[in-house]
Amino acid sequence: MENFEFISPTKIIFGRSTESLVGEEVKKYSNKILFHYGGGSIKRIGLYEKVVGSLKEAGVKFIELPGVKPNPRLSLVQEGIKLCRKNKIDFILAVGGGSVIDSAKAIGVGVPYEGNVWDFYTGKATPKETLPVGVVLTIPGAGSEASNSSVITNEEGWYKRSLNNDIIRPKFAIMNPEVTFSVSSYYTACGAADMMAHVMERYFTNTRNTDLTDRLCEATLKTIIKNVQIVLREPSNYDARAELMWASTIAHNGLLGTGRVGDWASHLIEHELSGLYDVTHGAGLAVIFPAWMKYVYKHRTDKFVQFATRVWNVELDFENPEKTALEGIEQLRDFFKKIGLPTTLKELNIPEEKFEELALKCTNGGTTTIGNFVKLSKEDVIEILRIAKE
Amino acid sequence: MENFEFISPTKIIFGRSTESLVGEEVKKYSNKILFHYGGGSIKRIGLYEKVVGSLKEAGVKFIELPGVKPNPRLSLVQEGIKLCRKNKIDFILAVGGGSVIDSAKAIGVGVPYEGNVWDFYTGKATPKETLPVGVVLTIPGAGSEASNSSVITNEEGWYKRSLNNDIIRPKFAIMNPEVTFSVSSYYTACGAADMMAHVMERYFTNTRNTDLTDRLCEATLKTIIKNVQIVLREPSNYDARAELMWASTIAHNGLLGTGRVGDWASHLIEHELSGLYDVTHGAGLAVIFPAWMKYVYKHRTDKFVQFATRVWNVELDFENPEKTALEGIEQLRDFFKKIGLPTTLKELNIPEEKFEELALKCTNGGTTTIGNFVKLSKEDVIEILRIAKE
Repeated sequence: MENFEFISPTKIIFGRSTESLVGEEVKKYSNKILFHYGGGSIKRIGLYEKVVGSLKEAGVKFIELPGVKPNPRLSLVQEGIKLCRKNKIDFILAVGGGSVIDSAKAIGVGVPYEGNVWDFYTGKATPKETLPVGVVLTIPGAGSEASNSSVITNEEGWYKRSLNNDIIRPKFAIMNPEVTFSVSSYYTACGAADMMAHVMERYFTNTRNTDLTDRLCEATLKTIIKNVQIVLREPSNYDARAELMWASTIAHNGLLGTGRVGDWASHLIEHELSGLYDVTHGAGLAVIFPAWMKYVYKHRTDKFVQFATRVWNVELDFENPEKTALEGIEQLRDFFKKIGLPTTLKELNIPEEKFEELALKCTNGGTTTIGNFVKLSKEDVIEILRIAKE
Repeated sequence: MENFEFISPTKIIFGRSTESLVGEEVKKYSNKILFHYGGGSIKRIGLYEKVVGSLKEAGVKFIELPGVKPNPRLSLVQEGIKLCRKNKIDFILAVGGGSVIDSAKAIGVGVPYEGNVWDFYTGKATPKETLPVGVVLTIPGAGSEASNSSVITNEEGWYKRSLNNDIIRPKFAIMNPEVTFSVSSYYTACGAADMMAHVMERYFTNTRNTDLTDRLCEATLKTIIKNVQIVLREPSNYDARAELMWASTIAHNGLLGTGRVGDWASHLIEHELSGLYDVTHGAGLAVIFPAWMKYVYKHRTDKFVQFATRVWNVELDFENPEKTALEGIEQLRDFFKKIGLPTTLKELNIPEEKFEELALKCTNGGTTTIGNFVKLSKEDVIEILRIAKE
């Protein structure tokens, strides 16, 4: 186990009707806030009205900034920063999924910073302070409700980049599984793939002796695998929705990565797909992750054998453990297919001519490597994209 | 799953040599602190000097209050409160195991409170504020380093009572597994039993649909079971000590109980043993827990079958699942024996004549019940003590 520091101070308020508590929670921080959200979906499901009602009841004034898109854009973040400064706003409420929360986090660190907020995403600067952010979660998957990360897309060049810093962890996250009943099958499946990727990026590690976190990872994966299938059959099954929602937080609040070095190459490769082709993140991961696995599994067959036997109940082939490792990867790919996700770049309409460009982008023009489990060069990334081709 | 609120904001600083960071961490809160510890063990292992060195280097002044005993006493807490008030101290550093931390938490809530701090332990009052508490952990087990609870023994009547409140969660916990190399086999085993009890008190619940937390509980139990055996053979095995240490925090920071109602009857019965006979908490739990299980398992055989198959790898007897449930309980009892713990009241020299008194004490003179999984009357407690007899 590696030395580590871990802090996850987000207050979780979980369960039926909990959105009615939002005004009371917000009021602990501010009387005048930015209410940040996406499109019409929170109005369609009646959540908008409930949140507005609760804020008004608590005497909290708000300025609205809707319009967050999946793969949230830097331009809207800049608009939010200006709006907060102009109106002397000191708290941001994000009502939505990972995109809205990530956008709110970006506005939060941008407001007190004199330079361009994009500096935090390129690594040019490190945020020292932030406006506090609160969350009412509507789509589980990204785990942003309690995570220390935010991912933003810069339309100039379509770069999708992330900021990771403990100061951007939200103050509270209100999570009512009922709110997620209307999430479509496709977005539910994408969310599950994103959660699973968050776990697996931590699971496949070079760190030895990781008993507890290995088992916590496996526990979380098995829960997601079981419950997403129930939800796809019964979209209004409260308990299955609840399991998925809580799993999404646990998958990405950092606990499962304590004491071990994660990989994150699959996430980085996927970010380039999302950046260039506006692919839904979870769908991109469903394509990239099994391909990455096939490319790297020989680096630590033992870990892939463990994944196959413990997560997928593959019977261990004692004579040929490599077969078992490969069977685990196939199980994962089959599972993604089963829940309605693409598993090839062809399905995403990404042609082979683009592989070079994608690989260049995520390796800084071929000058750096990505990943920790195996360090991948531009050429390695191209090979992985080829495996994912069809 | 039940609605829940969960917050666990303690900053964990985990790994080799991390005690050298204590001065720097403390300084974020205060320049003048109470340094609270037990007896000579932290001096014997050289930890005292390291902590003092780090505090001095950071320019932090401290007043020492040693003398915390296992099953920490109210009288020392009162002394600590007076000491803090007299010296205008606003931070408490606990260097030790659960007893020291629990004592520090009690002092923390006692200082700003005008009444008797024991009020918080009898439920007569609820703490509204506390001095911040930081921890350097030396014995894993109690989980107090990140928990919201403190257990104190009042020498007047030898009542052992607990306070549970989120405001008493420590600000930080420094956890270096190397510091635990010198913990004796017996105390290591007691710590493991305490951790396991913290998990099992949450595991056996009437709440239905608890997939994720069930699996997280099982993951934590399996980690403890595996690693305590390694540690008993190899006391200086860093990785196994690290697994136990991190598992102790996870077992009791509240995560594993999210969305489910815990039981806690075994803990309450054991507290009476510890209060009257000064039994080591983990040893008392090793005696009480299997007896409690035998008394209540028919209430939800399914949960005990799950425990047996998933935690102990007992093969499911499809024709007679009850046999499987009972086998799981035997496995637990055998395991406690194997790691050197008592499993009968006889071994603890607690005679049958005392059962009535013990049962009366933990049921408020027979007027209340304890537990949630099954609500236990005074008579039920006596029956459980009889099962635990020999």
